[in-house]
Amino acid sequence: MAEIRSIYKDYPPFLNKNQQDFLISELMDYIEVHGINIRITNLEQDKKPIFIHKNVPLTLYPSLFPSIAFKKAKAIQCDFNKLYAHIANDEEFMCQIMENLINIDEFIRKLWDIHLQTKKKGIVQPISLGIFRSDYLLEATQNSSPQLKQVEFNTIASSMGSFSSKISEMHKYLNSIGAYGSCILKEENFPKNDSIKLLSEGLANADRLYGGKDTKILFVVEAHDPFILDQRCLEYELFQVHGIQAYRVSLHSILDSIELRQNDKALLFKSPNSKIEEISVVYFRTGYSPSHYPTSIQWSARLLIEESRAIKCPTVITQLAGCKKVQQVLCENNIINKFLPENISKSLKETFVSIYPLNKSLSGQEAYHLLMNNPQNYVLKPQREGGGNNIYGLNILSFLETISESQREQYILMEMIHPFLQTNTIVQNNELYHTNVVNELGIYGVILWDRNGKIYHNIESGYLLRTKDKDKNEGGVMIGCSSIDSCVLIP
Amino acid sequence: MAEIRSIYKDYPPFLNKNQQDFLISELMDYIEVHGINIRITNLEQDKKPIFIHKNVPLTLYPSLFPSIAFKKAKAIQCDFNKLYAHIANDEEFMCQIMENLINIDEFIRKLWDIHLQTKKKGIVQPISLGIFRSDYLLEATQNSSPQLKQVEFNTIASSMGSFSSKISEMHKYLNSIGAYGSCILKEENFPKNDSIKLLSEGLANADRLYGGKDTKILFVVEAHDPFILDQRCLEYELFQVHGIQAYRVSLHSILDSIELRQNDKALLFKSPNSKIEEISVVYFRTGYSPSHYPTSIQWSARLLIEESRAIKCPTVITQLAGCKKVQQVLCENNIINKFLPENISKSLKETFVSIYPLNKSLSGQEAYHLLMNNPQNYVLKPQREGGGNNIYGLNILSFLETISESQREQYILMEMIHPFLQTNTIVQNNELYHTNVVNELGIYGVILWDRNGKIYHNIESGYLLRTKDKDKNEGGVMIGCSSIDSCVLIP
Repeated sequence: MAEIRSIYKDYPPFLNKNQQDFLISELMDYIEVHGINIRITNLEQDKKPIFIHKNVPLTLYPSLFPSIAFKKAKAIQCDFNKLYAHIANDEEFMCQIMENLINIDEFIRKLWDIHLQTKKKGIVQPISLGIFRSDYLLEATQNSSPQLKQVEFNTIASSMGSFSSKISEMHKYLNSIGAYGSCILKEENFPKNDSIKLLSEGLANADRLYGGKDTKILFVVEAHDPFILDQRCLEYELFQVHGIQAYRVSLHSILDSIELRQNDKALLFKSPNSKIEEISVVYFRTGYSPSHYPTSIQWSARLLIEESRAIKCPTVITQLAGCKKVQQVLCENNIINKFLPENISKSLKETFVSIYPLNKSLSGQEAYHLLMNNPQNYVLKPQREGGGNNIYGLNILSFLETISESQREQYILMEMIHPFLQTNTIVQNNELYHTNVVNELGIYGVILWDRNGKIYHNIESGYLLRTKDKDKNEGGVMIGCSSIDSCVLIP
Repeated sequence: MAEIRSIYKDYPPFLNKNQQDFLISELMDYIEVHGINIRITNLEQDKKPIFIHKNVPLTLYPSLFPSIAFKKAKAIQCDFNKLYAHIANDEEFMCQIMENLINIDEFIRKLWDIHLQTKKKGIVQPISLGIFRSDYLLEATQNSSPQLKQVEFNTIASSMGSFSSKISEMHKYLNSIGAYGSCILKEENFPKNDSIKLLSEGLANADRLYGGKDTKILFVVEAHDPFILDQRCLEYELFQVHGIQAYRVSLHSILDSIELRQNDKALLFKSPNSKIEEISVVYFRTGYSPSHYPTSIQWSARLLIEESRAIKCPTVITQLAGCKKVQQVLCENNIINKFLPENISKSLKETFVSIYPLNKSLSGQEAYHLLMNNPQNYVLKPQREGGGNNIYGLNILSFLETISESQREQYILMEMIHPFLQTNTIVQNNELYHTNVVNELGIYGVILWDRNGKIYHNIESGYLLRTKDKDKNEGGVMIGCSSIDSCVLIP
């Protein structure tokens, strides 16, 4: 424990045994009352599934976060929303990027095929909904305050909005009741985190824009998603605040319950009561990984949805706009100015780190040399979402030996960010781990736009702070390395 | 299954497999997100306690409930609140009742002693808070609609207010989203159930009336109460809506953290941060059973609290006003008119069933004969709260043989209510039991009054519907025989 020292004096606070017991019992009960749990489903053949609920990994204390960086991340979110909306509208640009990927990446090829097939038949729904999240690390600097550096931009299934909102409230509550001992953080330094409200509002606005009567929203989900309780909060908010019902269905079984209305390709869903419901919005909380499409059934389902008149969150092309290759190309000289005026793109570009292709192009070859000279300075990333796929430092070299040169096109090489460290205590499986941590800030954004570039709704929609042990490289809460946190702003 | 037939045509509705799966998954997720769980604590020596959370037993469907009876129960609650406030203020009346009990019931003697000791030293807090619940069964009648019959009146630790409020919301939600199949109950027939809001408001008003500055409320609780999540909701509401913090402490450990201020007997509590806090209100969620006082420590704690300037919810005498003997005496001719004018007491008396003493008095001897002639028509009840202590029908005869005649004074003999039956499905331990059920309606009431009879606040505060298998006689949710339900009003 002795090596774990905070860079902040007296934070997290030292608590005596009494105070610690008080904090833990307050936190544990808060989690249970507010349903901040992940669900583990035990499936035994021929038996009812058994659910076990465990607290979602989270931090005991909110993390201190530089106010300038936090406000900047929020301020640029609407421009990032616009940027990705414009990219998804730019068929030519996307086509160029896909051209190289589809030959070596079957998953991307199949998705792109769905887009092309749909385009060929005629796109009947010009409007798209994006529920995005831009993720950042804070790069430690020698002299100035830490700099915001973008890790990735998520265009599909940006999750944890409900839990992050609840955990922000929880940390604020724990502070207010004195559960952090003599350390009293000022309430005005806890930024508001309204993601449940704002993400639901985005879905509701899309429903209204669709313009049907008594339409429903369809959540496409994994059959036994551990984060179902995070998703459910959006459903309850949609129903209670907006009067809109959502149904849940898996990619595996959806074909049994949907069809397109002949005249206008409206997506019709057969409810558990065998009522035929018109779907206004399809909200994907799955579909971003090859493992979500084990058979052709899931692919057929995705195609049918894409062809429908329902507003997709996201469309296939919007999903593909979030692949790492696009992020890499945006880092190339002034490409971003294709989509945004220079005075706007400037702030966005400040958050970019160097990203290189690893192909036979000139910059690919240069990148290879940079990597050979200084491998510990890089991370290799595939096009996949969802975490758990990245390769770090020296491991990159041995990994590259296992794939052919043409396969390298699938990867991008990203400069390693040297993140700002602090200490915190992670609560997981009822155990506490006091450790040096890295914070990853995600800003949610919701945008509704059409193929002509008209924007109907564009807002920054709350945040997610994920905190992980500094010695663990991956960020996904799903894979158990990262915990949900919240920010207390500091100068 | 064939014998279980509803008296209501088409209710509960028949659901096919799809509809049933939909309903169960909606219900189970709702429970988890809203923390409607009981906590089982596994204590192993020298190890951290392990918590297991299970859904509180509840019904799949709301029960149909006659509107007239429901409205009557609500309408008379404030008068019942007043009645018991007046009784608790009537030293002479209570003294008479206690006189006979204290010689044979040690628990009651010890409580009454606390009251007498406190009175001797001088009562420094004239104001009392009552959070009451009046419990009723519906008596089936041949011709008219079912009649409301009072089972008991709770003056201490009236629990389940939060869960009942949440389950009312849940049944309404399940109905709205079509989870009850083709059965669509009208939304206006789901009565509002604001117990979380109203019970907390009562505590907050008591805090204000106490008149201190930055005072806190103390919840006195069992160390490992399975219903902690029900209690927590009141704490969160108190803090979020009224800005009042509550601390939790057990009768066992409270003496380590409280003392009386010398000059005014203000109750001072040492918080986990070692801050000395003045307590405005002590809210007992324990202390109603001899098992809550295993040693003299708990008795000393109760005495110290009683002597303090804090407002008690309840005072010892208010707690004792809830004993069965008082309920029995109130049934005697016109005794109730000592406390309430006849035009008001009339409606209350309509809910009374015949209750007899079993002592050597004339009516006690008469009762004994009634019992011998028709034992299956009676239930024998001790003075205890909390359920699990009653003896029914033929069992009474063999039980009476095991106790001395003088001990009979501890019991009251109550006419058995022949309750109105319907069918429902109980959800417990992830299993469903479709069965004939009996409904027990509890109406919460909050009253703030002083020893001069001045009433500061008196409201009906929501309801609890508990539903149990008709073949199980006990009602407490604690003892696993009864499940939480909600009402849908019918003509």
